[in-house]
Amino acid sequence: MAQAERPLSDHPTAAESADARTTLAGLGEAAVLARIFPRLPAADAALLGPGDDAAVLAAPDGRYVVTTDMLVHGPDFRWEFSTPTDLGWKAAATNLSDVAAMGARPTALVVAIAAPQDTQVDVLEGVADGLRLACAELAPGCGVVGGDLSTSDVFTIAVTAFGDLDGRRPVRRSGARPGDVVAVAGELGVAARGIALLFESGLEAARGTDAHAVARQLRPMPPIALGVVAADAGATAMMDVSDGLALDARRLARASVVDIEFDALGDDQLRGGEDHSLLATFPADVPLPDGFLRIGAVAPGVGRLLVSGSVFDELGGWDPYAQWDGRLS
Amino acid sequence: MAQAERPLSDHPTAAESADARTTLAGLGEAAVLARIFPRLPAADAALLGPGDDAAVLAAPDGRYVVTTDMLVHGPDFRWEFSTPTDLGWKAAATNLSDVAAMGARPTALVVAIAAPQDTQVDVLEGVADGLRLACAELAPGCGVVGGDLSTSDVFTIAVTAFGDLDGRRPVRRSGARPGDVVAVAGELGVAARGIALLFESGLEAARGTDAHAVARQLRPMPPIALGVVAADAGATAMMDVSDGLALDARRLARASVVDIEFDALGDDQLRGGEDHSLLATFPADVPLPDGFLRIGAVAPGVGRLLVSGSVFDELGGWDPYAQWDGRLS
Repeated sequence: MAQAERPLSDHPTAAESADARTTLAGLGEAAVLARIFPRLPAADAALLGPGDDAAVLAAPDGRYVVTTDMLVHGPDFRWEFSTPTDLGWKAAATNLSDVAAMGARPTALVVAIAAPQDTQVDVLEGVADGLRLACAELAPGCGVVGGDLSTSDVFTIAVTAFGDLDGRRPVRRSGARPGDVVAVAGELGVAARGIALLFESGLEAARGTDAHAVARQLRPMPPIALGVVAADAGATAMMDVSDGLALDARRLARASVVDIEFDALGDDQLRGGEDHSLLATFPADVPLPDGFLRIGAVAPGVGRLLVSGSVFDELGGWDPYAQWDGRLS
Repeated sequence: MAQAERPLSDHPTAAESADARTTLAGLGEAAVLARIFPRLPAADAALLGPGDDAAVLAAPDGRYVVTTDMLVHGPDFRWEFSTPTDLGWKAAATNLSDVAAMGARPTALVVAIAAPQDTQVDVLEGVADGLRLACAELAPGCGVVGGDLSTSDVFTIAVTAFGDLDGRRPVRRSGARPGDVVAVAGELGVAARGIALLFESGLEAARGTDAHAVARQLRPMPPIALGVVAADAGATAMMDVSDGLALDARRLARASVVDIEFDALGDDQLRGGEDHSLLATFPADVPLPDGFLRIGAVAPGVGRLLVSGSVFDELGGWDPYAQWDGRLS
């Protein structure tokens, strides 16, 4: 909002301490951007990167894949548990996972951040580090091509991710056919165990109990490269398991108008969300690609989920509107 | 954040009134999405629209343009002044303008919204209406291909916009050459007059004083179609005037390593932001396209702005980190 008419606000602390001079308000937008830019990963697909009104990206096969996901302090992450680098990693990973679930190779991200004015600039540097580390580990060649900075009392990060299908058809949720095998790549229920431990006992104690689960909650490790592998192997349907296997499997069953029958699976595996594993269906005569494990089969049906032969209706999952109680700790 | 382990929060009002049943918390995410989806504009470029893990868009010339911009309640808009439809319009218009400033035709948007849980669903319906109306008016054929909903105490909307260069080279900020003519399409200082009046006297009185300025502040009318026209006419550099003509012109001068010399311009025209007009430079022997007005010329130089022959350093503009005083009214 252009408000040159309004007087500059008085930031008494800005003159008083070194700490205040390194806040976003103390530095101002241009200086903050100058600190962040060098830490961001470059994108191989960028024909024109950050710094102009918009970026220009290559789409060699004439199409591109797009998804967006916003993380808000409170319902989606908490500074009590996450470092800035954890947050940058998670914001990248959750979006990369949606690109992979289409059978696409992630190419680029744009990132909008709204942060409180008294945020230290090293918080944003840490977020940039997390974006860079996640791209390097999960999707080499993918980078940040643009962004926006604003101010808000609630720290918020919105990432939009892009991908290239390299000539492949996109793998949708609606392509599962009776007789297909149902398979998963990645862990199930681990990130949910992590957040349960964090709420129960706090960061240090939770790490003592199950460091792996806490690490996966704070820095998810979705099997990004396996999205393309599954598509090449002939996957008929695929999706990112973000809200819990049971809930997401029923979404896939409904989109495909089939029933999905799981073999025996534990309750934690069925309900725990945020692992960002890949759920896919393959023709029965196709060897499952390395990294995918068979967990069931597709049957003719009307969009139901069955586990060990019984209809499974208690789906779990997480609805921020209906379920978040507003607590921050 | 998957938190199936945590009890459902207690929403005592949800059972008590019809109003509470139509909040985002009362309806839940799936029902909210079902209300919003039919109001969103479809995109001609969508090969696969909303509803899967990601959308797939056409990029016929093998490239696409990307920009992102976030609006936060408080520094960027206020419910005191803006209706939900105004907000949706503004969120679309500011992003479409950045696409146009590259010489591209806007094709699609993705939209992430974080809203307080007690927000009435008709607020989000109004935002969707604004997105649809702005696309229809400013960029026919452009539509919404995906999104995300989250919850936050601070209403926040992040839009990412895409465009097609249709074979044209992108028009950057860095291409202005000595001897070029400097021209503007769109109004200057009108949106800033609108916000000044709103702060001074409130919505109704401001409308009584200058309804046009208030309307342009709340629903900007950037000359989107003229971006492509300018590129086709041979524009050497172009940018969206979002932070004020003087500030943005100096950015263009610095990127191009030239001086920009303006003819006589009023202080309001030089400093007022948010009109989202297009600032462009053209070779002197090219007839200016209809809609562009000459306001100066490019001279050899080092990135300075001169007005009526004198260096102009008081640039105005708006820095949310340094300047927002945290007030909401």
